[in-house]
Amino acid sequence: MSNTNTSFVLQKINEISFEDRAIPVAGPGEVVVNIKATGICGSDVHYWTHGSIGHFICKGPMVLGHESAGLVASVGEGVTHLKVGDPVALEPGVPCRNCEMCKTGRYNLCPDMKFAATPPYDGTLCNYYKHAADFCYKLPQGISLEEGALIEPLSVGIHAARRGNVKLGDRVFIFGAGAIGLLTAAAAKAAGASHVTIADIAESKLNFAKTYSADKTILLTKKRAEGQQSNDFARQMAEEILAEEGVEAANVVFDCTGAEVCVQMSVFLVKNSGSIVLVGMGASVQSISVADVSAREVDVKGVMRYCNTYPTAIEMLSSGKVDLKSLITHRYEFKDALKAFQHVKEAREGTIKVVITNDQ
Amino acid sequence: MSNTNTSFVLQKINEISFEDRAIPVAGPGEVVVNIKATGICGSDVHYWTHGSIGHFICKGPMVLGHESAGLVASVGEGVTHLKVGDPVALEPGVPCRNCEMCKTGRYNLCPDMKFAATPPYDGTLCNYYKHAADFCYKLPQGISLEEGALIEPLSVGIHAARRGNVKLGDRVFIFGAGAIGLLTAAAAKAAGASHVTIADIAESKLNFAKTYSADKTILLTKKRAEGQQSNDFARQMAEEILAEEGVEAANVVFDCTGAEVCVQMSVFLVKNSGSIVLVGMGASVQSISVADVSAREVDVKGVMRYCNTYPTAIEMLSSGKVDLKSLITHRYEFKDALKAFQHVKEAREGTIKVVITNDQ
Amino acid sequence: MSNTNTSFVLQKINEISFEDRAIPVAGPGEVVVNIKATGICGSDVHYWTHGSIGHFICKGPMVLGHESAGLVASVGEGVTHLKVGDPVALEPGVPCRNCEMCKTGRYNLCPDMKFAATPPYDGTLCNYYKHAADFCYKLPQGISLEEGALIEPLSVGIHAARRGNVKLGDRVFIFGAGAIGLLTAAAAKAAGASHVTIADIAESKLNFAKTYSADKTILLTKKRAEGQQSNDFARQMAEEILAEEGVEAANVVFDCTGAEVCVQMSVFLVKNSGSIVLVGMGASVQSISVADVSAREVDVKGVMRYCNTYPTAIEMLSSGKVDLKSLITHRYEFKDALKAFQHVKEAREGTIKVVITNDQ
Amino acid sequence: MSNTNTSFVLQKINEISFEDRAIPVAGPGEVVVNIKATGICGSDVHYWTHGSIGHFICKGPMVLGHESAGLVASVGEGVTHLKVGDPVALEPGVPCRNCEMCKTGRYNLCPDMKFAATPPYDGTLCNYYKHAADFCYKLPQGISLEEGALIEPLSVGIHAARRGNVKLGDRVFIFGAGAIGLLTAAAAKAAGASHVTIADIAESKLNFAKTYSADKTILLTKKRAEGQQSNDFARQMAEEILAEEGVEAANVVFDCTGAEVCVQMSVFLVKNSGSIVLVGMGASVQSISVADVSAREVDVKGVMRYCNTYPTAIEMLSSGKVDLKSLITHRYEFKDALKAFQHVKEAREGTIKVVITNDQ
Repeated sequence: MSNTNTSFVLQKINEISFEDRAIPVAGPGEVVVNIKATGICGSDVHYWTHGSIGHFICKGPMVLGHESAGLVASVGEGVTHLKVGDPVALEPGVPCRNCEMCKTGRYNLCPDMKFAATPPYDGTLCNYYKHAADFCYKLPQGISLEEGALIEPLSVGIHAARRGNVKLGDRVFIFGAGAIGLLTAAAAKAAGASHVTIADIAESKLNFAKTYSADKTILLTKKRAEGQQSNDFARQMAEEILAEEGVEAANVVFDCTGAEVCVQMSVFLVKNSGSIVLVGMGASVQSISVADVSAREVDVKGVMRYCNTYPTAIEMLSSGKVDLKSLITHRYEFKDALKAFQHVKEAREGTIKVVITNDQ
Repeated sequence: MSNTNTSFVLQKINEISFEDRAIPVAGPGEVVVNIKATGICGSDVHYWTHGSIGHFICKGPMVLGHESAGLVASVGEGVTHLKVGDPVALEPGVPCRNCEMCKTGRYNLCPDMKFAATPPYDGTLCNYYKHAADFCYKLPQGISLEEGALIEPLSVGIHAARRGNVKLGDRVFIFGAGAIGLLTAAAAKAAGASHVTIADIAESKLNFAKTYSADKTILLTKKRAEGQQSNDFARQMAEEILAEEGVEAANVVFDCTGAEVCVQMSVFLVKNSGSIVLVGMGASVQSISVADVSAREVDVKGVMRYCNTYPTAIEMLSSGKVDLKSLITHRYEFKDALKAFQHVKEAREGTIKVVITNDQ
Repeated sequence: MSNTNTSFVLQKINEISFEDRAIPVAGPGEVVVNIKATGICGSDVHYWTHGSIGHFICKGPMVLGHESAGLVASVGEGVTHLKVGDPVALEPGVPCRNCEMCKTGRYNLCPDMKFAATPPYDGTLCNYYKHAADFCYKLPQGISLEEGALIEPLSVGIHAARRGNVKLGDRVFIFGAGAIGLLTAAAAKAAGASHVTIADIAESKLNFAKTYSADKTILLTKKRAEGQQSNDFARQMAEEILAEEGVEAANVVFDCTGAEVCVQMSVFLVKNSGSIVLVGMGASVQSISVADVSAREVDVKGVMRYCNTYPTAIEMLSSGKVDLKSLITHRYEFKDALKAFQHVKEAREGTIKVVITNDQ
Repeated sequence: MSNTNTSFVLQKINEISFEDRAIPVAGPGEVVVNIKATGICGSDVHYWTHGSIGHFICKGPMVLGHESAGLVASVGEGVTHLKVGDPVALEPGVPCRNCEMCKTGRYNLCPDMKFAATPPYDGTLCNYYKHAADFCYKLPQGISLEEGALIEPLSVGIHAARRGNVKLGDRVFIFGAGAIGLLTAAAAKAAGASHVTIADIAESKLNFAKTYSADKTILLTKKRAEGQQSNDFARQMAEEILAEEGVEAANVVFDCTGAEVCVQMSVFLVKNSGSIVLVGMGASVQSISVADVSAREVDVKGVMRYCNTYPTAIEMLSSGKVDLKSLITHRYEFKDALKAFQHVKEAREGTIKVVITNDQ
């Protein structure tokens, strides 16, 4: 292992540099993890190019990265379930453990959440990252560190499927065939969904989706996806899909795009008593047909990251219920992290997931 | 009992007349009820003045009224739980009993629902109404027929409280101090809510609410309630309420107005992980802050009438958990039904609920 | 199709004969089905050999059989979703549709349930069976009538999995490797279980289970399964399983045997906050460690047949989430139905499911 | 406030003495509370007279008491929601905050729970008690410290009502009219129950129950409550209650006695699809009719203390949904604590709750 702590630091908008930082020391209940693999998320790139997401604003330098796994490098007092050398996946947010949300099992809503690479907290793109030991999950034999890193986006899918209460035999419709859409589909199928349709405007993504977790794909034309932006238009598009594509109304619709027209269409693609889960992030304020939400008793549910998903994800990986390996389309070494970010920023065709590996 | 079946028939928009119709005969599983008390609902008046609600359009004459109770006049084959003379409350919708929604316990979403005074089905403002016996609920001693009639709007409140999953100790915020808002408040409190705030633009309604089911009332100024119609405005108004009125964020917010600004404010008045229940009907398409719905994992839930509420309502009445009598501010005899409709149409101050009584 | 209605009638204990009965006529909302395939259930054989199950007692002749599928032979008034010739699976119980249980979505608990081959109602082992059309489910292309017949026992598994609230990533433990145990395992896995252990005293059944839906099997010795019949013994056996077999405590334990020692062991094999589902039927009164049920907040849940499972089962079959074909180890023609019953009665080794086919 | 920390210490079975212990110092996230009021629970007395409860065994001296409230005496680093002098109720168990049970909102099942006066952890009968600040709940104006102390037993009732999923309009049956039975009744009514029956063998307790939270009481004769100890006997007794006492089958039955015959009767007093909640502790192993549990899909649910109840209890007290004051039938000063224990041990007639007050 390295004896330096090279860190990939966002200095300000559009300016990233490597810094040598002090190697952290594990306090009681903590471990230090030698980070080996980190997936890049759109949010990492967004902080780089915009400096903020919503009301989270970078006011100083911040290490990027939050989808990580590595090897335990040192163990703090009182930690008994991990030892040096253990491969672990890192759940990147540590809540306060004291508030109502923490005590009722929804710690993702803790107002004092410290989340890696969400300002002002440093992220995981470094050699050594100090973390609460109980948020480091030992990977069983046969699960690679790269898979461990991708438990983070899988967690979004698992949590979305839970929020949507996907049940055995459900029909599911998903907008968005990026990594989150694909993993939401995978989680929904593993949770019992019998049929998953994925819609997107990018044919190449749909082609991948067909080989991955989609039973059916629908190519949304630009017209459909960015059209006249009215609910009447959305209703018409949804009715076309139901009539022409042989798709049944869904028990659960997941929007993984954030596009208003997709959220609008969701209302018309969901069954009576079904659920719409808002996974993507787009315009803050969107108009939807509340009349239809009411008349058919639809539940519209927000999603904020995830909680209690890592043990589930590890069960899924161990039992072969999900495939994370085939999502990794590109790899970069840590020293080329900026190229990796550039790659994701450019949204190159054929890219699903870019992973940064670190052999230091 | 009368030997005619005088019926209050909407002939076309703004034209109602009494007709003598044939006295119906109870088939197997049915009873005929001599209607004694009928509450007037805004929807009855709306059909009178507009001829339609949403996609429900009156294409021919239709008897109005659906909040009714009466005495069993005759009993069809196979009916064992009722006998002639029994006082009964009528649940006004009869579903198909065969579809997925019916079989899974959400029969209010049955696409083949036959609902009194929803076109093309005749309503209950007549001397004799034929109904499925199992949707007629015998009133225990001590519950009046007028109370029986008001089980219908109480059902809306019970169902809304269920959809919102109101729990012991919850804080509740309700927009709208009309009959539905008041009854939603009453149901929420009976279901365990510890504190209910009701907001409205009409001070007289709030004055009544204070004596009925509200722990706190908030007078919304017109500015607040019909303001600039933006989410920023709604956020600001909500923050004012939380800051200045001593109201805590609510576990559940019920909108019983349908006003877009109220739905918008709901998002900012609800706690993390809380629910917003859309009870009122207003503009079909409304814009809401989906960013906040997501970030705090709010559930937005539509409401369509109710199901399985009548036995609950009777338990509530028997045990004194709800007071329906004091809601009845005005009474008219059946022969003066048009005056009663006129009264409701004018929305006279001091009116909560108008009931038509029938001694024939 | 046959122009007679040959029926397989239990005349009295141990006496079955074929009778020619009248071909039934479909009334409104009904269809007549030409039965083509019928699985034999232990309960059918039990009525044959004992004349009763619990408080259900055969007091006159009764046609046996209730796991059936066939072709629609005639269609009654008002039936629109089926036409003559359609292949259908029959859900064998028709509830009253009027009671609280029916209206709240738990119609399997309807006290007026009319269930095929549960006295006094005739079963389906005949050429023509009249049934409520909405309890006949059209089989999609690619699903055979034999599979359609086995939707009945699959329904028990689906319902058990629902009662146990099996979730994504759950670990499951099942006592009993007969058809019901196997199908409960299959349903649990389809609903998200990541690991299923099946325990039985019959090695041959476990060998089949390994190839079907079990991730791990445990051979219970007679000592274990019929041992000293004390909770201390059960606790010791369970602790041995957890310590020696590499099995983790389960989120959900299903007892598909009815054996008291298995129910007792369940309490010690389930996790804190887990569920035990009682699927099997054995001694009416059994002793369990309520102290452990309390201290670890276990939910013990009874199961009575199923409801709302057929559409789910068809989704599972269509999407390949369950394999029913490989369960059919033996087939008999309808004329040899008695031989089929004899086969099941003898519990011949290597038998999972015996199906009676009818080409008439 | 006192400058000594007089503590009421169980030295060994049947031997208690006062000790002067060091006044504790609040660490980070902790407060020290000057204990002012402590209710005595049967478990405190049981440790005194038996030295153990189940597998919890006193191996050294242990301070008794766990139902307490007091004034904040000092505040540790990082505590912002409390200040010196604040009146607080103490939730007496502090979980590990790191395990699956803690993170999923069921921290009462944490295997590393540290609970006051459960060996080896000292209890609260002392002048100064150090506690995690987030498990100290500030009492609003108008709530006395004695009421604050009784939030502990109220919590058992709230949690039991939650586990039983008591809903608006439910009928409830409770065995046991002691403090826990009464508070379970109170919580069930506050959560929507329309009718609560309480059964006991002590007429004086039932007389109190009638004035408190029972709509109906049933005097169980010794014959009924300790009878032949068979399920047939229990069934017969239950049927008598349903037939002769005018009691309907209950949606939820709570056993707050632990008596096997009561648990057995519960199965026959509960409705189809209802729940039985095991609140009391009695014989570890009990026999119940699993056949009836299955045939009617009853849920039998264990209860282990409580979680997330204190904020709910404070809401209930603030809104007048529960009355704790009238449960306090006897008071002793701290110096007479042994007399108070003697009082509870003797189970003197007319005693509901004994509280020890401390003015030091």
